[in-house]
Amino acid sequence: MKILMVGDICGRTGRTALLKYLPGIKKENNIDIAIVNGENSASGRGITKRTLDEIYRAGADIVTSGNHIWDKKEVVNFIDDEPFLVRPANYPEPAPGKGYCIYPFKAKNIGVINLSGRSFMPPMDCPFQKVDYILKKIKNECQIIILDFHAETTSEKIAMGWYLDGRATCVFGTHTHVQTADEQILPQGTAYITDLGMVGPRDSVLGMKKDAVLERFKYGRPVRFEAAEGPAVFSAMLIDVDDQTNKTTAIKRILINEPF
Amino acid sequence: MKILMVGDICGRTGRTALLKYLPGIKKENNIDIAIVNGENSASGRGITKRTLDEIYRAGADIVTSGNHIWDKKEVVNFIDDEPFLVRPANYPEPAPGKGYCIYPFKAKNIGVINLSGRSFMPPMDCPFQKVDYILKKIKNECQIIILDFHAETTSEKIAMGWYLDGRATCVFGTHTHVQTADEQILPQGTAYITDLGMVGPRDSVLGMKKDAVLERFKYGRPVRFEAAEGPAVFSAMLIDVDDQTNKTTAIKRILINEPF
Amino acid sequence: MKILMVGDICGRTGRTALLKYLPGIKKENNIDIAIVNGENSASGRGITKRTLDEIYRAGADIVTSGNHIWDKKEVVNFIDDEPFLVRPANYPEPAPGKGYCIYPFKAKNIGVINLSGRSFMPPMDCPFQKVDYILKKIKNECQIIILDFHAETTSEKIAMGWYLDGRATCVFGTHTHVQTADEQILPQGTAYITDLGMVGPRDSVLGMKKDAVLERFKYGRPVRFEAAEGPAVFSAMLIDVDDQTNKTTAIKRILINEPF
Amino acid sequence: MKILMVGDICGRTGRTALLKYLPGIKKENNIDIAIVNGENSASGRGITKRTLDEIYRAGADIVTSGNHIWDKKEVVNFIDDEPFLVRPANYPEPAPGKGYCIYPFKAKNIGVINLSGRSFMPPMDCPFQKVDYILKKIKNECQIIILDFHAETTSEKIAMGWYLDGRATCVFGTHTHVQTADEQILPQGTAYITDLGMVGPRDSVLGMKKDAVLERFKYGRPVRFEAAEGPAVFSAMLIDVDDQTNKTTAIKRILINEPF
Ligand SMILES: [Fe+2]
Ligand SMILES: [Fe+2]
Ligand SMILES: [Fe+2]
Ligand SMILES: [Fe+2]
Ligand SMILES: [Fe+2]
Ligand SMILES: [Fe+2]
Ligand SMILES: [Fe+2]
Ligand SMILES: [Fe+2]
Repeated sequence: MKILMVGDICGRTGRTALLKYLPGIKKENNIDIAIVNGENSASGRGITKRTLDEIYRAGADIVTSGNHIWDKKEVVNFIDDEPFLVRPANYPEPAPGKGYCIYPFKAKNIGVINLSGRSFMPPMDCPFQKVDYILKKIKNECQIIILDFHAETTSEKIAMGWYLDGRATCVFGTHTHVQTADEQILPQGTAYITDLGMVGPRDSVLGMKKDAVLERFKYGRPVRFEAAEGPAVFSAMLIDVDDQTNKTTAIKRILINEPF
Repeated sequence: MKILMVGDICGRTGRTALLKYLPGIKKENNIDIAIVNGENSASGRGITKRTLDEIYRAGADIVTSGNHIWDKKEVVNFIDDEPFLVRPANYPEPAPGKGYCIYPFKAKNIGVINLSGRSFMPPMDCPFQKVDYILKKIKNECQIIILDFHAETTSEKIAMGWYLDGRATCVFGTHTHVQTADEQILPQGTAYITDLGMVGPRDSVLGMKKDAVLERFKYGRPVRFEAAEGPAVFSAMLIDVDDQTNKTTAIKRILINEPF
Repeated sequence: MKILMVGDICGRTGRTALLKYLPGIKKENNIDIAIVNGENSASGRGITKRTLDEIYRAGADIVTSGNHIWDKKEVVNFIDDEPFLVRPANYPEPAPGKGYCIYPFKAKNIGVINLSGRSFMPPMDCPFQKVDYILKKIKNECQIIILDFHAETTSEKIAMGWYLDGRATCVFGTHTHVQTADEQILPQGTAYITDLGMVGPRDSVLGMKKDAVLERFKYGRPVRFEAAEGPAVFSAMLIDVDDQTNKTTAIKRILINEPF
Repeated sequence: MKILMVGDICGRTGRTALLKYLPGIKKENNIDIAIVNGENSASGRGITKRTLDEIYRAGADIVTSGNHIWDKKEVVNFIDDEPFLVRPANYPEPAPGKGYCIYPFKAKNIGVINLSGRSFMPPMDCPFQKVDYILKKIKNECQIIILDFHAETTSEKIAMGWYLDGRATCVFGTHTHVQTADEQILPQGTAYITDLGMVGPRDSVLGMKKDAVLERFKYGRPVRFEAAEGPAVFSAMLIDVDDQTNKTTAIKRILINEPF
């Protein structure tokens, strides 16, 4: 089975790039399932029903998210009705939406979990405890487990990779919007990458107009950030999962940089 | 001119890997100058005269560092005597050592600057103000400017890349110990990568034994971290600098993963 | 000379309490100069021309502020025209407004400085370096120096108290909105208190409606904070400055709690 | 019933001051139970069997702690054998020691809970969820509930006060080492103070030698901190609990400053 994972879709530029590249990549690589992080799809912050639908129309099967999930308030109106839209599972209960979903594909169930890190991020329930709890609940039902670990630091993400090595088919990171080059299959068979990177405007800082971000860094006063535009970067990763063992046998990063 | 930049050397495993790979890479690629980040060369934290000398013997010309520079106390005994060992320039004055050095090569001077970020890092002087100040001082003297920006967040690093685009030959990031895949030449000709990644043990979290780090994340109580061992990762980047314009014309990431 | 310092005025409730208590306190205690922190005077976040004027009308002579100074955008339209409104001096240059002012009173000049801390606060220029720089500039002109150190941690504030002991007439803290009981005259004659506390609604968390704040702490999702109302707390401190030595000879906390 | 709560005992100076003042205060005020925070009793960081015993000998009945509880490694050897030594209950399970204890006094049980905050502190389990869980478990058994909320920010502490108003007899804060002046009985009868303050050397920053702390703030390089000495501050709070309602009827801060 071939599974594609696509990083944080940033604003209109990100959605346009998704629509432009995802169908072709899926076709070329015989992708069975596409998982896309949509937390920044609406103007760089949050997700709306409209941007979610665009992501689905581009070919996503499952949409993950992160700390920006709540930025557009309307999300609470539709998140419970979307079976394959997940938000970090370690928001304290009760929270709108769900932290994992089970996606049926042929004779298998793919459990897709979303968790947030805590290093340099706001307090949350422990992602390590939470993933144990979820795995216990779904491991009999799901042959394949995929985790989108939405976290800031390389240390917390790498630690999670090791923590799930042999227990998940794939652990990928999101949130930093920069693709890392450390994709690998860990010794017990779990595919791992620290960050997928984003799908969004290159001429930007994490998808936002660079002048405003620079002004913020230089002067320390509040500055309004706006989604940038222009040439896009498309960031994704593809894994090949063995039908017998449900472990990853091949892993490939995808990075498309449109010219400046 | 060909310049190689090598990421944070982690402990004995990192030093051994440096000695194993650096000479060959230099030879194969006709490297003129090698810049190596040594902040973790002594047991994963800090640098000693002995580990500095090992880094030089492996072929480094200039050694940069970061927040761990002070971890081994003996560093203050020799840092002022080392013309090509630099520490973040934005430590408040007065501080032992220097924040940049000028390395003469053939008819040129290469200014190598080291700065620390401030996002999710301890308070320091502003790296953006500081780099302006240093550039003003050395730009007439130096034809080529290279910055090791030792910082945590992708946003601060990318912002610095844009800030220096056209004013530096290369801006590379260190500190996260994971190589990013976003090496690129920015529109005004500055080579950029968010993080070089480390030279150290793969079976680890950022160079440290993974069980201890995991225990720390899971239980939140203090745990002693020790340098890990085993197969190494070697992370570097190579740029080709035009002799006329002093801008980067080619950029290449280097990532060697020894098998688990 | 008798100088009164009043803590962060929070929203309408705070402004009303200021108007209610300040005139009487000034009269009763023969206050010569009143310094009031106004950073939260406009709906709990920021300051407007209207709320600034209300603070002056209540009897303030000098208005200090802090990290919330920029929250209402109109502040940049009038801050440069207000000779006795100060904002943290360690915002990087150039910034609207000024970080200290010199208030003439009888034959003396009172230098009032505003600085922000950096521990658990956004990056700023170093407040310790900055205060040295300002003192050098104004110490010949000013017989009395007062610092509003707007900071989060007790350690940074206490450190600043010691740093200026003997060099300032008074160092008082603001920002935490809770009055501390550690008012004292340090050995070299500087009056010190870690935090003045706020002037605002008691039935609140730092001036904001408590249910929203609690929801934020419990569930970790974004919640809109609104200024609370109801019975007020009024927090201030009074110092008596010797006319010969310009040192503090007496210090008195003032705390009025309206009944729930 | 009269209950005394004493803030963080800092090093030898703190232990000596405890021995000097606690017995007299207990006698004068007819204290029934004394609760003392011991997290800094061993050289300013951590607790040993010897310093714990000194605290008991000075007259403590129950010893609470905080983030420094693990600093002296020997604590894990004895913490499980100490029925009335508690550490923050929101360390993830399993952790040595216990997060609350039940202290029998005459016909009543006093439940003493210790929790750590999370704002500007390392990740922990949620203190609000945890206190609900503990209260559910012990509320039938305990007539009186006291919480030592060891936390950094005024907002998290005040929020906890409101959260438990009417459900606990007293919520007091520790950790900042500076006594706040906001002691009060909340509308539903819960005694509250944001921070008790410390018992330790005045000529210090939070109990540590001030020169080292200042050097750290000014230069940002690592500095060894040592417990300070000299005149002490003694910080405590006393509540009077109604025998029928188990609510607080009177509250009094105690602050003794030995002269410089
Ligand atoms: Fe995110
Ligand atoms: Fe994102
Ligand atoms: Fe490093
Ligand atoms: Fe570092
Ligand atoms: Fe404030
Ligand atoms: Fe503030
Ligand atoms: Fe503490
Ligand atoms: Fe403490």
